[in-house]
Amino acid sequence: MPTSIQAVRFAFDGDAPIVELIDQRLLPTEEVWRRLAAPEDVAQGITDMIVRGAPAIGITAAYGIAQALIIDHGDFDARLATTCARFARTRPTAVNLFWAIERLQARAAADAGLPSRERAAGLLAEARDIHAEDIHACEAMGTFGAELLPGEGGVLTHCNTGALATGGQGTALGVIRSAIAAGKQLHTWVDETRPYLQGARLTAWECITDGLPATLITDNMAAHMMQHGRVQAAIVGSDRIAANGDVANKIGTYGVAVLCKHHGIPFYVAAPTSTIDLQCPTGAEIPIEQRATREVSHVGGWLPADRTDTLAVAPDSVPIENPAFDVTPSDLVTAIVTEQGVARAPFAADLAAMVRRAADARA
Amino acid sequence: MPTSIQAVRFAFDGDAPIVELIDQRLLPTEEVWRRLAAPEDVAQGITDMIVRGAPAIGITAAYGIAQALIIDHGDFDARLATTCARFARTRPTAVNLFWAIERLQARAAADAGLPSRERAAGLLAEARDIHAEDIHACEAMGTFGAELLPGEGGVLTHCNTGALATGGQGTALGVIRSAIAAGKQLHTWVDETRPYLQGARLTAWECITDGLPATLITDNMAAHMMQHGRVQAAIVGSDRIAANGDVANKIGTYGVAVLCKHHGIPFYVAAPTSTIDLQCPTGAEIPIEQRATREVSHVGGWLPADRTDTLAVAPDSVPIENPAFDVTPSDLVTAIVTEQGVARAPFAADLAAMVRRAADARA
Repeated sequence: MPTSIQAVRFAFDGDAPIVELIDQRLLPTEEVWRRLAAPEDVAQGITDMIVRGAPAIGITAAYGIAQALIIDHGDFDARLATTCARFARTRPTAVNLFWAIERLQARAAADAGLPSRERAAGLLAEARDIHAEDIHACEAMGTFGAELLPGEGGVLTHCNTGALATGGQGTALGVIRSAIAAGKQLHTWVDETRPYLQGARLTAWECITDGLPATLITDNMAAHMMQHGRVQAAIVGSDRIAANGDVANKIGTYGVAVLCKHHGIPFYVAAPTSTIDLQCPTGAEIPIEQRATREVSHVGGWLPADRTDTLAVAPDSVPIENPAFDVTPSDLVTAIVTEQGVARAPFAADLAAMVRRAADARA
Repeated sequence: MPTSIQAVRFAFDGDAPIVELIDQRLLPTEEVWRRLAAPEDVAQGITDMIVRGAPAIGITAAYGIAQALIIDHGDFDARLATTCARFARTRPTAVNLFWAIERLQARAAADAGLPSRERAAGLLAEARDIHAEDIHACEAMGTFGAELLPGEGGVLTHCNTGALATGGQGTALGVIRSAIAAGKQLHTWVDETRPYLQGARLTAWECITDGLPATLITDNMAAHMMQHGRVQAAIVGSDRIAANGDVANKIGTYGVAVLCKHHGIPFYVAAPTSTIDLQCPTGAEIPIEQRATREVSHVGGWLPADRTDTLAVAPDSVPIENPAFDVTPSDLVTAIVTEQGVARAPFAADLAAMVRRAADARA
């Protein structure tokens, strides 16, 4: 099931480098591409979630940094440092962001002897490599992951892990696409994924657009569907995987994993090796982003600030917490699918080997 | 923590019997009382969820039936049968509705020798008794339940089980009120309770109005809060309790119960004996209401049909399921609090004895 959906594009308008993002805040009701000519707008677009999804964030940041150095490559190293620091402040949890920044810094260091213009071109080449590698990683995850899914039945997914979250066909949703393409008779249960509703707004839209059989449910219906034998597997993406296999992902993922354990349902994670953070020993060290309470109190709170079509769903003065992610301990994870293969418990050795193989493949 | 919040009132406007309901679809942003002079409007108001909450539905139906027979008591028994059948069609899951209807039918039968006008007055007296008994039941549940809750810490609740759901201070939220009134240092975690957002719109409003310490979260954050040791107990209401202790309640309750088991957190249910259905051997026999998919696809889909301030959050054509309730098996229930005391596993004997004591108390 190939997809034509894209989240991030890079193009030149004359000499001007443009980062193009489909505005995911407006989906599914409006399809609007933002053509961002200023790196600051790209960085703010990540914070504002015009683009989201760990791999897509990494790709966007890479293009944004390259864009900054193409526009102005005088005092190259100082500007690179400032730009990388700016992008590092956009969102704290997804490690793909920092991984992409480090790759661009390494490229700039390797090209240190070249003229600034060529070093800037090198950054764009590196960003394009990151994007291209992610497309291939999605395909490879699809191939490895498809074998894990049952021949038929219901597969639950949470948040959006499709083409909108990556450079390619997706991580977890990409695995479902590949399994269906391979002839498996799968039906996707789409958790709506409060508060931001990435499932209802984005995953449901991808499923409709690409003809994937799917049913949308509220997050709190997943347990009921499992209880009635309608869910045979769950598969989710990740924003950061610790060295021991603990998985940070969209808030609600941990609850899905607990429910899977209770019902004897396999719980899979699909993420490229760029999501694995070997510097993070366990999930306890992963920073969890706390987002604005307005995302919970106002539906449509994700819309651009100039939009008024939001709806208050809670009293103004009620205290609210809004952690954007949670951590699923590795003992609830059946397997982690990367572009390098399938990791199983105890995860540490498999994950370290996969990161090494990915680095060797690039070298 | 006494409350002045009411969901249902009955009054005469001259000779005209009026059922008054606070329109729970408009809360928390607007406080509008509907003054319903026609029993058909009362019945439709239950279906449309102007009023909801199992005990409040029973009270409202009782007043609506009395209203119908006060307005027109010619051909008393035929009109009573038609009216009861109409109210029985309003919502299928909450057994308090059918229990209230049966009580009015029994009263009419007991008064069969009286003039129709007096039989109609008897129905109103019975409805007022049901309402008054529910106020007392809430107080008694509060007294029994408060002892179960910890001296301090976080208590998770789901849906709305407060004054808006009952005739009195509430079932589960009433227990929390009583525990706080008794000096316990409790903080309430309010599940927003998708799709209808009874937690965000109603429970959060009750907590703010009555000064109960509370934090609103999306349903999928509960697991994260439990994982971090911030939830010491969960307490919910019920729409129907089977003879074996299986509990039907708002969708999402079953998931909360599974999460509690995983984290070693006690899971309590508070409901009056009118919620216990001894004719239902297990939860498998409880009918589960499927509601309109628009409640999921459009936030604000609960608003009256003439309101346009709704927001589509999913593609038009995506399939949706919307079961309004789920069933928690009794082996996940730590205790069931009724106005007769605290039932524990195996529940069957305790529940049957409680129903018997409640009937004896009325006799």
